[in-house]
Amino acid sequence: MGATGVVGAEIRSILEQRDFPLSSLKLLASSRSAGKQLEFRGEKITVEELKPESFEGVDIVLASAGGSVSKQFAPEAVKRGAVVVDNTSAFRMEPDVPLVVPEVNPHAIKDHNGIIANPNCSTIQMVVVMKPLHDFARIKRVVVSTYQAVSGTGLKAMEELREQTRALQGGGEYAPSVYPHQIAFNALPHIDVFLENGYTKEEMKMVNETKKIMEDDSIQVTATTVRIPVYRGHSESVNIEFASGITAEQAREILSKAPGIKVVDDPQKNLYPLATDCDGLDDTFVGRIRADDTVAHGLNMWIVSDNLRKGAALNAVQIAEYLIA
Amino acid sequence: MGATGVVGAEIRSILEQRDFPLSSLKLLASSRSAGKQLEFRGEKITVEELKPESFEGVDIVLASAGGSVSKQFAPEAVKRGAVVVDNTSAFRMEPDVPLVVPEVNPHAIKDHNGIIANPNCSTIQMVVVMKPLHDFARIKRVVVSTYQAVSGTGLKAMEELREQTRALQGGGEYAPSVYPHQIAFNALPHIDVFLENGYTKEEMKMVNETKKIMEDDSIQVTATTVRIPVYRGHSESVNIEFASGITAEQAREILSKAPGIKVVDDPQKNLYPLATDCDGLDDTFVGRIRADDTVAHGLNMWIVSDNLRKGAALNAVQIAEYLIA
Repeated sequence: MGATGVVGAEIRSILEQRDFPLSSLKLLASSRSAGKQLEFRGEKITVEELKPESFEGVDIVLASAGGSVSKQFAPEAVKRGAVVVDNTSAFRMEPDVPLVVPEVNPHAIKDHNGIIANPNCSTIQMVVVMKPLHDFARIKRVVVSTYQAVSGTGLKAMEELREQTRALQGGGEYAPSVYPHQIAFNALPHIDVFLENGYTKEEMKMVNETKKIMEDDSIQVTATTVRIPVYRGHSESVNIEFASGITAEQAREILSKAPGIKVVDDPQKNLYPLATDCDGLDDTFVGRIRADDTVAHGLNMWIVSDNLRKGAALNAVQIAEYLIA
Repeated sequence: MGATGVVGAEIRSILEQRDFPLSSLKLLASSRSAGKQLEFRGEKITVEELKPESFEGVDIVLASAGGSVSKQFAPEAVKRGAVVVDNTSAFRMEPDVPLVVPEVNPHAIKDHNGIIANPNCSTIQMVVVMKPLHDFARIKRVVVSTYQAVSGTGLKAMEELREQTRALQGGGEYAPSVYPHQIAFNALPHIDVFLENGYTKEEMKMVNETKKIMEDDSIQVTATTVRIPVYRGHSESVNIEFASGITAEQAREILSKAPGIKVVDDPQKNLYPLATDCDGLDDTFVGRIRADDTVAHGLNMWIVSDNLRKGAALNAVQIAEYLIA
């Protein structure tokens, strides 16, 4: 579902790369995209219009067509015996829907009732790093500020950044339409809609999804989420206060042995994670790990990952692999 | 000193705009720029080569030619009876050199011994906002992540962003030379050099300069400073823990009455401070003020200011105005 979107394209490429065990693949999208042909394993597959009957005979649905589409169609898929791995925020906080990052809480997958939710991109890369550190020294509080790429918004946002940048560099103008303000050469402290409490939905996703995935309501998270003119790769400045002692050196050692993580942390050689370096890669990258002496047990770090892969498509495909296993 | 640099140009424009009471202006730069003509109040002034004798008969020196130049020439100016307002980090932490933000500690100016230091750009805009809040509810701890513009590095960095962006958009390449990595469409968690403790000098400036300007060593600051592809205007995500109660509403009221601050905080109308909106303006802009319930008395906020004006040239000229007054 959502085969022609930016995450849909990424899912197709990951299914190929990982040699995902499937006998047939259906590409579903809105009527606007139906009839379009997309390549998969060297063959052309025609995109079909998404309908309730599309799910007949389907085992696993990977959904990334937006929250309202998932709300409408995921139950139709479940009714026909499919398991839906949903990339949208539609079901994430439902008590009977597992919210899964395979490196963190794979055991939750088996409790599904037909729908498994894929967390928000900025949350996934943060909890991948938090989990092994939490197991070692228990995390009390996190203050996170994000530097998020426009591909998280979708193809139109990538085009807006590209065309707006071109216009401004040429001395012209390009009115924003996807974003409420100019995104080129700017930083917008505004992702998703604003809530009553002054936070954005994106910020509250980082607060609430973290607790659910980590299965620990005592972890306090406060977030400021910001869109910057980067095409691909979310970066995060993360300050963590622990309940017990942990040095930067210990954190580096723990993280370098943890699944799905690559430590890039040699600042004297200008080595630290960068959005441009993680493009198309599976790992979550962490660096700039250093003691924060303003609290008893504190660390600062810089976490970067490809928001379309681990932040969306890859995590969903990993869940599907666990389902099969 | 440093008349042909990006801050030097800004100082000239601010001296004009504020009708600064001067009878004559000398423009000093390296021998490379000597002979160049620059306009001031409708007249052309020839740039002179910076020499110790340049300061004969000069009352006030505004210095922005880099730390090593200040170290060499500021004492020469003082020896000849001038007062130096120094934009570099050369003397900031010297015990007998006042480090001044006029909205915060103007009284410190009178204790000078010939040199007054202008703080680091990212520190200035933060303390302007911190001061009135600290007076109300005492600040215990600050966690700050910055989103800094390339103009803070200088003219060559602005050109690197411009040309690199153009090359990449055209499908070409442009090797970084000012920055260690690609700055276009990226986020570099690296400003100034790395120190033994894993922090950058820029990050430690925010820690140490804040304590000196606020005249309170008990204020704990931990910082992550990041360069992003913005030409002008530093943004900061600032999390503050207070000793006593303060609501977001109270903070908004206090800040809206404080000097040099403009509160832009109506998220439902998409109103919050933006780098592109502060370009060329004097105020420090603050918004996204909201309660952080993960600590007893916490607030998150978003602080933006023109790094070349309040962050550099304007603050220096304001200090010079106090000197005269």
